[in-house]
Amino acid sequence: MLANELSTPVLTVDLDVLERNLERVAETCRKQGVSLRPHTKTHKTVEVARRQLALGAVGLTVAKVGEAEVFAAAGFDDILVAYPIMGQEKHRRLATLARARRILIAIDSEAAAHELSRAASAQGGTLGVLVEFDAGGKRCGLEPGPQVVALAKTIAKLPGLKFRGLMSYFGNVWGTPEERRAEAEQVAQRVDRALAAFRAESMPVEIVSGGSTPSLEFAHLISGLTEIRPGTYVYNDLNTYHQGACRLEDCAVRVVATVVSTAVPGRAILDSGSKTLTSDVMSAGPKTGYGYIVEAPDAPIVKLNEEHGLVDTTSSKHRFHVGEVVTIIPNHVCVAVNMHDEIVTLRKGEAVGCWKIAARGKIR
Amino acid sequence: MLANELSTPVLTVDLDVLERNLERVAETCRKQGVSLRPHTKTHKTVEVARRQLALGAVGLTVAKVGEAEVFAAAGFDDILVAYPIMGQEKHRRLATLARARRILIAIDSEAAAHELSRAASAQGGTLGVLVEFDAGGKRCGLEPGPQVVALAKTIAKLPGLKFRGLMSYFGNVWGTPEERRAEAEQVAQRVDRALAAFRAESMPVEIVSGGSTPSLEFAHLISGLTEIRPGTYVYNDLNTYHQGACRLEDCAVRVVATVVSTAVPGRAILDSGSKTLTSDVMSAGPKTGYGYIVEAPDAPIVKLNEEHGLVDTTSSKHRFHVGEVVTIIPNHVCVAVNMHDEIVTLRKGEAVGCWKIAARGKIR
Repeated sequence: MLANELSTPVLTVDLDVLERNLERVAETCRKQGVSLRPHTKTHKTVEVARRQLALGAVGLTVAKVGEAEVFAAAGFDDILVAYPIMGQEKHRRLATLARARRILIAIDSEAAAHELSRAASAQGGTLGVLVEFDAGGKRCGLEPGPQVVALAKTIAKLPGLKFRGLMSYFGNVWGTPEERRAEAEQVAQRVDRALAAFRAESMPVEIVSGGSTPSLEFAHLISGLTEIRPGTYVYNDLNTYHQGACRLEDCAVRVVATVVSTAVPGRAILDSGSKTLTSDVMSAGPKTGYGYIVEAPDAPIVKLNEEHGLVDTTSSKHRFHVGEVVTIIPNHVCVAVNMHDEIVTLRKGEAVGCWKIAARGKIR
Repeated sequence: MLANELSTPVLTVDLDVLERNLERVAETCRKQGVSLRPHTKTHKTVEVARRQLALGAVGLTVAKVGEAEVFAAAGFDDILVAYPIMGQEKHRRLATLARARRILIAIDSEAAAHELSRAASAQGGTLGVLVEFDAGGKRCGLEPGPQVVALAKTIAKLPGLKFRGLMSYFGNVWGTPEERRAEAEQVAQRVDRALAAFRAESMPVEIVSGGSTPSLEFAHLISGLTEIRPGTYVYNDLNTYHQGACRLEDCAVRVVATVVSTAVPGRAILDSGSKTLTSDVMSAGPKTGYGYIVEAPDAPIVKLNEEHGLVDTTSSKHRFHVGEVVTIIPNHVCVAVNMHDEIVTLRKGEAVGCWKIAARGKIR
């Protein structure tokens, strides 16, 4: 069956593009001498994670305990939970996983350290812990300096925990290659400040985890970095393209949609709304619209309702008709993938399989 | 277990508020002499649909064939698909349902009519068809007038289809009570124009379906309306509140979330990001923020990443601490519900049950 014969709306991935993306980033990491621990948030799929490990990834990254459970059940052994999980029920489940698997978690508070220690002690396992510091994104993470060391020392003393290093998110590295390089240099200074505080106390730091897709090619500029955890690079999306971190032809995932109405003049309605594409707006580039229609790039998706994608056809050369099938590159592929239970795999436009998005909706 | 002891993030519904909302709208419809065929898009849950029927609803409304299948399997017999479904696989499934259930579908094109007729004929069932006209929302629907009648005549002649009436969406009825009344009067004129074209041809129109939550109390102003299909009224949300169509205490659904980080000054991070609350922005009121924190209304959720809700604490009297549990009224409850597999039911703050969101993710 061809992609445009599938029942719509449906999420598809071009395997040739996916494999090229996987190989390119594996090679980029090798060249830079940095380990790759990809964030699974983008694909949430066991089959893609297996390909990442086969190409040399040292482990996986997840955000939620439920995601760690999915990948642990599929046989993955070395998993970083790059999120400061709080809550006894989740800590208990995480500590249960840590009895049989290598589990790392990143935290930025004494409260999390004490609760995790209690859970790990109760389960008889050991949780590896990274301390998160803020590389400039102002989201999570302590200010690089003595308070990072202080939390590391607390962790080192607590039963059931093992301090293993530092983590930060480089989410602010965006823009043209020059802008991204300049941001990466700012990040490098903050990483160095964090590490200097440990050197001053002669305290070893085994792991320094950083990264994001737009920053991955600048890993070599960041001294002390041991591993990175980009996610989006497997599929890419319109944001990654406008962040300057991929070409349009590197976007592996498309939503296949059908035109369902052209009754209102100047409008075509697609059967893909916010339940399919999500309402995530562009964070780079023109910052308008809800996806790129491959067959009609001059027809912007100007609004989404839950089930309706409203296309402005007034300036388009394309003549939309009811029943026509089009393909859309989403603004933000990670959240779009999370809306779907499965993704159809394509080779040269032909559907060749279907993967379960096994970690979809694992919010706890 | 109390709501604030649940593992987070988690979706909860206060049953007292839900029941009050259900009863109020059932009564409003009775008083106005209009039938209620609620849109299930908001709750996607069999247990809520059963309560709606018990209170006098004449049937259900859905947007997708997969949703119709969920409710048909649960025993519901009279279902309107208020969406111009296109695609052979979906038409075949819909026609299969129509062999044993009363199924209505709303369309606005000859193309949809012909394809539905083929599917219904092949399956040996009859699909009831409404013609959608545009009441001013400029989304789907033909301009009220002769072309609506022309499509109705085509449908009346096609095998497997039965023309049963008209449908429109009153999504533009918003604002203060006065603004909503004025908009409802505009809508009434367009409904009348659609009906006048049928009167001119002496063609009977059995069903005239309209509505939305903000317009439901003005149904009596719209002459000829036989039924309405509001969805959001069961749960309400911050949008409904700012549209002037409910009070804050009528919002039945809250996301229970945990503070996971306060490491960055001026910030508290909640474990509820766009994967939990969605990126839907406000369409009414202040049009900023991603939800209302009940315990700290002066602390706006200024940004969402997938798993992070970024709260600006700089102007708040509330002192957030790591591990603290808070409750959030979402901007748009329909899409928030669609992110979750289940919803915990509460009575007076105590968890008393859990409903499966059975029609979640039924995108086809």
